[in-house]
Amino acid sequence: MHPALQPARQHFAGSFSLDSETMLHKELREEVLEANLEIVRRGLVMYTFGNASGIHRDSGHVVIKPSGVPFDKLKPEHMVVATLDGAIVEGELKPSSDLDTHVELYRAFSGVGGVVHTHSTYATAWAQSGHDIPCYGTTHADYFHGSVPVTDPLDHADISGDYERNVGLAIVRTFDGRDPLKRPGVLVRNHGPFVWGPTATKAAMNAVLLEEIARIAAITVSLHPDAAPIDRELLNRHFYRKHGARATYGQG
Amino acid sequence: MHPALQPARQHFAGSFSLDSETMLHKELREEVLEANLEIVRRGLVMYTFGNASGIHRDSGHVVIKPSGVPFDKLKPEHMVVATLDGAIVEGELKPSSDLDTHVELYRAFSGVGGVVHTHSTYATAWAQSGHDIPCYGTTHADYFHGSVPVTDPLDHADISGDYERNVGLAIVRTFDGRDPLKRPGVLVRNHGPFVWGPTATKAAMNAVLLEEIARIAAITVSLHPDAAPIDRELLNRHFYRKHGARATYGQG
Amino acid sequence: MHPALQPARQHFAGSFSLDSETMLHKELREEVLEANLEIVRRGLVMYTFGNASGIHRDSGHVVIKPSGVPFDKLKPEHMVVATLDGAIVEGELKPSSDLDTHVELYRAFSGVGGVVHTHSTYATAWAQSGHDIPCYGTTHADYFHGSVPVTDPLDHADISGDYERNVGLAIVRTFDGRDPLKRPGVLVRNHGPFVWGPTATKAAMNAVLLEEIARIAAITVSLHPDAAPIDRELLNRHFYRKHGARATYGQG
Amino acid sequence: MHPALQPARQHFAGSFSLDSETMLHKELREEVLEANLEIVRRGLVMYTFGNASGIHRDSGHVVIKPSGVPFDKLKPEHMVVATLDGAIVEGELKPSSDLDTHVELYRAFSGVGGVVHTHSTYATAWAQSGHDIPCYGTTHADYFHGSVPVTDPLDHADISGDYERNVGLAIVRTFDGRDPLKRPGVLVRNHGPFVWGPTATKAAMNAVLLEEIARIAAITVSLHPDAAPIDRELLNRHFYRKHGARATYGQG
Repeated sequence: MHPALQPARQHFAGSFSLDSETMLHKELREEVLEANLEIVRRGLVMYTFGNASGIHRDSGHVVIKPSGVPFDKLKPEHMVVATLDGAIVEGELKPSSDLDTHVELYRAFSGVGGVVHTHSTYATAWAQSGHDIPCYGTTHADYFHGSVPVTDPLDHADISGDYERNVGLAIVRTFDGRDPLKRPGVLVRNHGPFVWGPTATKAAMNAVLLEEIARIAAITVSLHPDAAPIDRELLNRHFYRKHGARATYGQG
Repeated sequence: MHPALQPARQHFAGSFSLDSETMLHKELREEVLEANLEIVRRGLVMYTFGNASGIHRDSGHVVIKPSGVPFDKLKPEHMVVATLDGAIVEGELKPSSDLDTHVELYRAFSGVGGVVHTHSTYATAWAQSGHDIPCYGTTHADYFHGSVPVTDPLDHADISGDYERNVGLAIVRTFDGRDPLKRPGVLVRNHGPFVWGPTATKAAMNAVLLEEIARIAAITVSLHPDAAPIDRELLNRHFYRKHGARATYGQG
Repeated sequence: MHPALQPARQHFAGSFSLDSETMLHKELREEVLEANLEIVRRGLVMYTFGNASGIHRDSGHVVIKPSGVPFDKLKPEHMVVATLDGAIVEGELKPSSDLDTHVELYRAFSGVGGVVHTHSTYATAWAQSGHDIPCYGTTHADYFHGSVPVTDPLDHADISGDYERNVGLAIVRTFDGRDPLKRPGVLVRNHGPFVWGPTATKAAMNAVLLEEIARIAAITVSLHPDAAPIDRELLNRHFYRKHGARATYGQG
Repeated sequence: MHPALQPARQHFAGSFSLDSETMLHKELREEVLEANLEIVRRGLVMYTFGNASGIHRDSGHVVIKPSGVPFDKLKPEHMVVATLDGAIVEGELKPSSDLDTHVELYRAFSGVGGVVHTHSTYATAWAQSGHDIPCYGTTHADYFHGSVPVTDPLDHADISGDYERNVGLAIVRTFDGRDPLKRPGVLVRNHGPFVWGPTATKAAMNAVLLEEIARIAAITVSLHPDAAPIDRELLNRHFYRKHGARATYGQG
């Protein structure tokens, strides 16, 4: 057991003063918990590596997983509630160490309702390679409208300063002039993916899809290093079949 | 949960007017449902990505999965029945958005009784690479009599027009002069595999086999990029050991 | 369901005339059945692709899986008993179509008590690549004393003649001057592995080990195409730590 | 069943004279057993390939798994207790054949409380490739402060002499001038990983993490053979976020 987990378990052994009936954002806590469990069930997360959050836009409150707590012990009341300034509003555990990254994404991307961070295998390998994931096919085009970008390297000031916040700002810079909901994820260079969506549930689904897209793309490259990205028209055809006002997929 | 799924779930919550005793093609609905579940169980399908159908040749009715519905909720009465012109005969849900592709295959390939479409990992990577899967060995030769072909790219008119139908026509062109039952699948370029067989059950089995063939071939290429395809005589020996009038495999 | 399976299922539906108390080689039937199930449980076999057999050396009887029967229906009484000339002694089902290959191995390799054939993914990819699996490390050296050889291609006469028997003879030629028990397996070119051992149980274990050795070797090559094989002295140190009169591994 | 296992099973069938109440190091035996089971559950170990041990520093006693015994039969009383000279203090089974390697690590690395050896797939492939695993990203940097080193080849005297002990000495030489707790593992060339930690539990966790790090690094190399290692400052930022006096991760 990682030492970081032991204090957390002491908390669990003790009683929580938080009243599960009156605590803030009960439904969002449940959705965020479920998003955290989904990325574990889908094999994107080992031990306590990942984290998912959601935002309640009216209050500006972010609900996020606590830091370094085993997923199989998590309950809605363990979630931490913070403001968009990163101040803790409610919760007895320390929030995920990546809270400040999540907060910067919520501040910059107004349509985003949930954020997920993992070190999933193939997406992390692409992040380590320093290359965008090209859009090689319709599996990718159904969910990401173009390549999945990799951030620029952080510089000395970024790393030595307010690091987690600066990771968020580097992501935001990467999306300058791009719609983050048409391309709901990014590869933080030498680190791993951050993924988002209109809700925490959809952010978790996008994280699962990104890992599969990254895997298929890695195999594509191994088969044919010069494989060409998808035709622009086919990209549009697929993305807008599932997204936007003219979507025709599903029962909607 | 993907938004496309929500209207479908509303349908499930409500009652169906379809009478499970009198509905058309009860047995074929069950076989098609089972084929859809098989591709999920075998790991070929994430979320609602894939679809399987079967045809009742006497009536010319195609039975297909509804669009964007979670596999674990599917029942025989949710299947949609359509004609070979794509008109809906029976069913309260929208059919799979790929119905028109399935229909074109049934129209052109008279011996085909079932069609399966997936985005399975290795077959999709080959489709994205733009290369046929060479027949490197007997695992492949036991089920596909020669390479698994990739379609030509769709052009502007194909994509902007009746797209799903044009995907079907591109597949049919790829099999011009070839027997589709000796090579029961294809890679739609930059998209993924369509696979078929004399029945929906066998189409699902062929989809599983194609994914494994694609995987072994990808590893073969990584070991030796210049690996040679199987000798023609050995290809024939294996294919006809399992298929045709002189088959010797099994208890038949 | 593959058509080859249907007649087999009819057999299962009917009654067997074989008396499970008086049938030949009851214990060996159970061991052979278990070896067949082990290669399924370990993920080496899809559908009905693989087969395991064992030999009763006193009588010269080979016990082998029937052809094309689903593994989850197999019982000891379904096994087929044949002589070293390939004649059926007992059993109501057709034997595995690879029986003649097994028989040639038992005839040539007097110390072999069990034979297993699979199309396991990585071993098959090596067989398709046409290259021996070099002995890159101690995982390999613990069980195979040197590279895993690939057979020469079969010629026209081999394929058009008594094919399965000729596969066996090609394997035997590959081991000319080599001890088959120090290197208990082979890659049949463009086909897949045949593996053996002093018993059917150990043959199944060697098939599992070969697949893992093949997988690690494929990754080794991808990391460093010029990786050097293990030092001869280290090879001997490991192989003889687990095999032969001076073995020190385990509780023996 | 491997022959090495059969004598062990005879032991299990008989009664143990060891009294589970009065035997030495009851808690450490349980932790070491659990570490052995963890590496099996996480897929790092096939059959009886791996071994985990722990040390009780006050007495200088090492508790280690017995040799060649199936993991699913292991109980705390089967563990073997040895001194740092390799003499058996308590236990009726032979210790793991790698005991002497473990002992050398405990002798040289005073802060180490547990050692784990596996042949896990990707770490073994790197060991076979003869290359260090570069630190390509933060997943690696969170647990290993820099590349995972590979040992120099053993020479004739090392292999023909006290082999297992010489493997340990080769590892120790690799860490000359390096802190083994900042880089808690090594690749023994042409063999596989040895991993350690302050406790047996943490050593097992580090073995699991090393396998994942090795896997992501292998995919990174396949995507971009010239991928650059992580920036030194980012390496420090991540490693010291989880380790040392200024750690901020978790609830501590």
